[in-house]
Amino acid sequence: MQQSIKNIAFAGSGNIAWHLAKGLKQQGYHISGIWSRDYSHAVKLADFCEAKAFHDVKELRDESDLIIIAVADNAIKNVAESIGNYEGIVVHTAGSVALETIKVNFKNSGVFYPLQTFSKEIHVSLKEVPFFIEASSEDVKHILQQIASKLTTKVYKADSRQRLLLHVAAVFAGNYSNFMYAIGEEILNKSNLPLEVLHPLIMETAGKAVKGDPKLLQTGPARRNDTITIEKHMDALASLPDYAELYGLLAKLISKNY
Amino acid sequence: MQQSIKNIAFAGSGNIAWHLAKGLKQQGYHISGIWSRDYSHAVKLADFCEAKAFHDVKELRDESDLIIIAVADNAIKNVAESIGNYEGIVVHTAGSVALETIKVNFKNSGVFYPLQTFSKEIHVSLKEVPFFIEASSEDVKHILQQIASKLTTKVYKADSRQRLLLHVAAVFAGNYSNFMYAIGEEILNKSNLPLEVLHPLIMETAGKAVKGDPKLLQTGPARRNDTITIEKHMDALASLPDYAELYGLLAKLISKNY
Repeated sequence: MQQSIKNIAFAGSGNIAWHLAKGLKQQGYHISGIWSRDYSHAVKLADFCEAKAFHDVKELRDESDLIIIAVADNAIKNVAESIGNYEGIVVHTAGSVALETIKVNFKNSGVFYPLQTFSKEIHVSLKEVPFFIEASSEDVKHILQQIASKLTTKVYKADSRQRLLLHVAAVFAGNYSNFMYAIGEEILNKSNLPLEVLHPLIMETAGKAVKGDPKLLQTGPARRNDTITIEKHMDALASLPDYAELYGLLAKLISKNY
Repeated sequence: MQQSIKNIAFAGSGNIAWHLAKGLKQQGYHISGIWSRDYSHAVKLADFCEAKAFHDVKELRDESDLIIIAVADNAIKNVAESIGNYEGIVVHTAGSVALETIKVNFKNSGVFYPLQTFSKEIHVSLKEVPFFIEASSEDVKHILQQIASKLTTKVYKADSRQRLLLHVAAVFAGNYSNFMYAIGEEILNKSNLPLEVLHPLIMETAGKAVKGDPKLLQTGPARRNDTITIEKHMDALASLPDYAELYGLLAKLISKNY
């Protein structure tokens, strides 16, 4: 294991791989190679960060000090097993996969988990993205923390249990809040009002939540136990029974919590 | 009915009354009086906007051209009935209450509904807040649109059915997205990681939704039909069974939609 990491290889060419490869290259690291299940995807990312594209995942070992496995959660184990003997460090980037899953295959392993929603087309400044580090040894942890510190001001240690809870929390605060927006827009569509009328509310709600405590900021019919309005709303959702059911469960849980 | 409104009175002294009274005063309207179920609350708002505080709701008629009823939804009907004969315009500010509810009591009535989440302590720029207008006649509608146009650049017409759907949409996009943040923070609390690690995700998710289409932007384990991660997450929520149930329902609905 090199104490000073210079050459970083990627297994995977999805959203996280793109954002990490771009960020690491900007910080002066050399991206030594990209492997992907779909070779043409590896070529695209390799072109983007002046790296080699590989057909065989074992080639990631060539001239690299660190391999970042950024593939679908359920593919991490197989990819790790396929890499074979390796003297460098291997990390994965998943919230809900234990370090244990790859630790058995390598001398030096870790987790390098950025908590953010990434899309290839949309620029994200990594500077504000929290990174969560776990490692097979203190030495590896130190090295991963150093790398993360070049990308962001927010580096945290988190073991696999903490990271799992964090990921569940992020599903609610990110994926599921987005689903609430999507449902809101679907309902609004039925009113022939333009979708952008919800935008100030969405931004104000999010902005308040990060300045204050969302639990204390809860408003709405359910928070006020306004059963008449809740009934009106569920009647209005008669043609969307899935959302009526969801509305009712959320109203019940909010009432119960206050 | 005055064609040119100068004097505006308020029934109610909650969040909406505060923000509207403040905004209208800044635009040069005279706030003629405030009545509230709790007189001491009326006094506070009256002091704030240099108005009179009234003990009797009927006094709102004194020297006013417009009465804005900004009370709890289920109190609107009673307050409207208590005002008695009035030559001016009476509006309410509620999303889910039909114009019909107050129309029977007055010659000139309407709805003046601002779609935003208001807290007394937090400044909101009304300029970006969409206002939705409904009225008992074209003349009244015109007058209400003129007033709204001084407060905001975004004035829309919406009948009672549209406004109800809009309010349901807003409950999902606002109240329920906030509840997702609150749940996220409650789960995160169990991990001993600081709550602010969720903030960049919350802001990025909201920011993307208003620039794009949240339906297309949906990510996460449910969107990917990643049943292994979904099961891990529901297991991690074993000590919070309400949230495990909610997680499961949301995962099911997302999977069904994609």
